[in-house]
Amino acid sequence: MPELRRDPIIGRWVIIASERNARPSDFRPDTQAVDDVSKCPFCPGNEAQTPPEILAYHPPGREKNKPGWWLRVFPNKYPALRSDAKIKRRGEGMYDQMDGVGAHEIIVETPHHAEHLADMDEKRCEDIFWALRERMRDLKKDPRFQYALIFKNHGRAAGATLSHPHSQLIALPMVPIRVKQEMDGAKNYFNYKERCVFCDMIREEQRFGERIVGENSAFIAFEPYASRFPFETWILPKSHVGHFERIEKEDIAGLAGLLKDFMRKLRGVLKDPPFNYMIHTTPFAEAENTHYHWHIEIMPKLTQVAGFEWGSGCYINPVPPELAAKLLNQL
Amino acid sequence: MPELRRDPIIGRWVIIASERNARPSDFRPDTQAVDDVSKCPFCPGNEAQTPPEILAYHPPGREKNKPGWWLRVFPNKYPALRSDAKIKRRGEGMYDQMDGVGAHEIIVETPHHAEHLADMDEKRCEDIFWALRERMRDLKKDPRFQYALIFKNHGRAAGATLSHPHSQLIALPMVPIRVKQEMDGAKNYFNYKERCVFCDMIREEQRFGERIVGENSAFIAFEPYASRFPFETWILPKSHVGHFERIEKEDIAGLAGLLKDFMRKLRGVLKDPPFNYMIHTTPFAEAENTHYHWHIEIMPKLTQVAGFEWGSGCYINPVPPELAAKLLNQL
Repeated sequence: MPELRRDPIIGRWVIIASERNARPSDFRPDTQAVDDVSKCPFCPGNEAQTPPEILAYHPPGREKNKPGWWLRVFPNKYPALRSDAKIKRRGEGMYDQMDGVGAHEIIVETPHHAEHLADMDEKRCEDIFWALRERMRDLKKDPRFQYALIFKNHGRAAGATLSHPHSQLIALPMVPIRVKQEMDGAKNYFNYKERCVFCDMIREEQRFGERIVGENSAFIAFEPYASRFPFETWILPKSHVGHFERIEKEDIAGLAGLLKDFMRKLRGVLKDPPFNYMIHTTPFAEAENTHYHWHIEIMPKLTQVAGFEWGSGCYINPVPPELAAKLLNQL
Repeated sequence: MPELRRDPIIGRWVIIASERNARPSDFRPDTQAVDDVSKCPFCPGNEAQTPPEILAYHPPGREKNKPGWWLRVFPNKYPALRSDAKIKRRGEGMYDQMDGVGAHEIIVETPHHAEHLADMDEKRCEDIFWALRERMRDLKKDPRFQYALIFKNHGRAAGATLSHPHSQLIALPMVPIRVKQEMDGAKNYFNYKERCVFCDMIREEQRFGERIVGENSAFIAFEPYASRFPFETWILPKSHVGHFERIEKEDIAGLAGLLKDFMRKLRGVLKDPPFNYMIHTTPFAEAENTHYHWHIEIMPKLTQVAGFEWGSGCYINPVPPELAAKLLNQL
């Protein structure tokens, strides 16, 4: 059973896996590519290599855990956290821990092993967000979970061990520190200004114009003023909404279109760079509120994070966001 | 001139370099090794390839910026921040910025291109900390600087572009967010317990015993209870001291001995892994206090940081710190 342990200084929880039999050689950086298409567990025909599916989108008449799907969700075979346990919070000396309870799901976004988001049929791209919405709404009913993080790793340098397009979802028994810090910051801003900081950013970006990389009636995409990474991009709903899972039909169409278009631009400028994206949303137990605004953060992996960044939390970004936007918008 | 820009949500400053002529191809991940020994700018004989030295340790009679030194400090040729300017704080729309004022120095730790800390003469290892202390005390006099972060990148996967052993120091016109969060957390703990959280951790680790990987009269090294990374190790002075630069002769001997011994163990278990370390210390302007305790954090780079970690601030560590300590202590 994995353990969740809390750092006593800043309150960061970490997941400690208890593979006590592992050998030191197992911890060396992984350098070989794991990309043999015929053995890809996410490809149609290899469904038996994954745990049984939780959800799949497919034409009528398809048998469960068989080919024919165009999107498929199942638990991670090697989950970071386990869903078959109760949370037991306890002290350990001066420290705090709880059992590693959570859910870890894989969303396979397409049956095609090498299809890029940028080339995907728009309806199929919408289905990714329908599936994420459906899973979030389901996990929210489990009283053990306080938060679920949706994220995607694309490319080996961004941490993807399998190249078949997929995103992941990890439900957690606590609100993770990064989200807590953002919620607190947004709350402080609201207390001072009586406005949502994200809504203010949208207005400021529309006024300034030079950092916007995509916009439609429901969503806006821009390079944030204080971008940590070259070509870092945020996508926000233009209307204030706190919870991602409240997204509706017309929003999903706008989001899928904007994301697909952005991916096309990013690939055009940078030749299919590795990237991560994650969705930040209001914690499950919190009601809709006036200060927090859900959004997607996309982070291409072009620069290395080293001692300075780890030690300071400050980033050195060699590409001003205004330049990144200009390059993206040339395509 | 680089710019410092502040994120309006959590208050994180980033350094935006204004190389507006850069082309997108410059931002692709750097994959080639830069390690031609004859051209190494940190090797003796190549002093002309670096900016003029600020400090060097050498026998009497040596000429400045010539060989003969055993430790040499100079400004980074490609500094992240510039030291020849005044801080101008200003708003930009709703955002905040200031000029990228700071100092960025390189501490070349040895004249030998391939010498590992683990093999270094103990007196030479002590000299690294003497040099760092000297530079910190000097930079502290500059009223523009609020903090200086000392860090080391070892190995390409940890961000080192030159393999010749060196550490770096970046002085900043603000207290970086990671340090601020630690200071705040330590203050909260003190307010509740009226004890330093770091002093409590030392006592707890001594009581438990199984996470300690080195100890002498002045310093202790252990794998923290909530380690983010496999073999993450912290080194702390056993007496409560807030500022690194207050370190004295007998402490320096203890620290150098412990660090060297730890590096020998780490290299033994993991075959010279890439790693980063950084020194966290009390900001320049703050007096000695009862709640913050300077320390070194060493982070071997064995696992990849991907979407989950970036989005949550939560880490998945496959090696429990108790196991890491056991493996290190077998050597």
